[in-house]
Amino acid sequence: MVGSKHMTYCVGALLKDGIIFASDSRTNAGVDNFATFCKLTVFERPGDRVIVLLSSGSLAGTQAVISLLKQRAEAGADTKNVWNAGTMFDVANLITDATRDIERRDVAHLNRAHLPFDASFIFGGQIKGEPQRLFRTYAETNFVEAEFGTPFLQTGETKYGKPILHWGINASTSLSDATKCVLVSFDSTMRSNLSVGMPIDFVRYERDSLRVGVRRRFEPEDPYFAALSKQWREGVRNVFSQLPEPEDPASTSR
Amino acid sequence: MVGSKHMTYCVGALLKDGIIFASDSRTNAGVDNFATFCKLTVFERPGDRVIVLLSSGSLAGTQAVISLLKQRAEAGADTKNVWNAGTMFDVANLITDATRDIERRDVAHLNRAHLPFDASFIFGGQIKGEPQRLFRTYAETNFVEAEFGTPFLQTGETKYGKPILHWGINASTSLSDATKCVLVSFDSTMRSNLSVGMPIDFVRYERDSLRVGVRRRFEPEDPYFAALSKQWREGVRNVFSQLPEPEDPASTSR
Repeated sequence: MVGSKHMTYCVGALLKDGIIFASDSRTNAGVDNFATFCKLTVFERPGDRVIVLLSSGSLAGTQAVISLLKQRAEAGADTKNVWNAGTMFDVANLITDATRDIERRDVAHLNRAHLPFDASFIFGGQIKGEPQRLFRTYAETNFVEAEFGTPFLQTGETKYGKPILHWGINASTSLSDATKCVLVSFDSTMRSNLSVGMPIDFVRYERDSLRVGVRRRFEPEDPYFAALSKQWREGVRNVFSQLPEPEDPASTSR
Repeated sequence: MVGSKHMTYCVGALLKDGIIFASDSRTNAGVDNFATFCKLTVFERPGDRVIVLLSSGSLAGTQAVISLLKQRAEAGADTKNVWNAGTMFDVANLITDATRDIERRDVAHLNRAHLPFDASFIFGGQIKGEPQRLFRTYAETNFVEAEFGTPFLQTGETKYGKPILHWGINASTSLSDATKCVLVSFDSTMRSNLSVGMPIDFVRYERDSLRVGVRRRFEPEDPYFAALSKQWREGVRNVFSQLPEPEDPASTSR
């Protein structure tokens, strides 16, 4: 049942040099019924705009919102859409409007089965004439914007990976170091929660480039990801062994 | 109101060389109404037994359970109690019995205020004639025992610190490395969740010693803890910078 509640993990990081987007691909938390869907959507018109969306929530809900956004985008210049929006703030309103339209249509039917309507998004990028920006919507369809003081946004199963992002990411972190940090946070989250799983969809956007820099899918056996994961764990064990020793028992209070 | 729901963080780690116990001291998750209480209780008769308890849940509930255990222990040899229990499994039953007695007394009154009865414990140690053992009870008062395959148990706000324990602790880890790892997991949890706070109460038990090895309280300004935290974050940033670089964009799929 693709509409049932499931867990996910998505991260967006707003850096001075650009934006990193990453999402897992697992749907359905059940151990005997899961599938892989891409939760990352890109609207790109090189030289004019790049808009990247990461979806969290029930697949039925988020797919419907994305379909509605695409359909409205294809309807042409008469309607406000992601291709003619003047600012990322306008895009944020288009996304929440589409989410509310789908919710209005579905919520009574879902509630009859005691399911909530559940669709939220991390999204960002850049529209010509504006700086790069990054947002997230909540399940209630209100939204917030990332700032350099709080440069990353997470949705879904956020807690396992959050300390890692705190250690490794501030606004001045390079895109390549931020990529490593975000991928390590995925590795740790997937090891702790079976309902978050590979492949990982990844986009790297370089500030003011107005085109997608890198788009990549890390499959379960990806050699780079495996090497990163192994070297991270070895490196961290070294850090533990080099930390100062707890004081001698004799000197401690009882 | 000391009886209200609050967050906590407790860890017990069962190693071949001994057991590490640690708990935070924050009660009440409210930002304008919190207090410090010791959540760590020790029953020690050197040469015969060491039993350490870490409490999670509402303070009113866990304090009442501990008081009942102590009162029964002082009542003497006619009643089964923590001083005459022959095994840690018997101690586990004494703790769950006490928890159920308090719950029976309080639950109807709490439910009238829409509060659950909420008290769970990590506990362990060693009784002469038995190996060292480590357990946890759940809110439902059933319990599980740690094994070397899953050597640590957590209660409360567990997710932020869990990957750190996975990286740093297996059954063969030394007591001093396990201590560092557990303290780092506290540091990260406290940075992510304001409702978990210093001081940290800590006990180190050495296998077959039948006495408390180290008992220590890490206060908010503890110089060892501050150095550990700083060196951990610096060490981890070094690990990030030494991880392999993501492949060159040119070689990635679009």
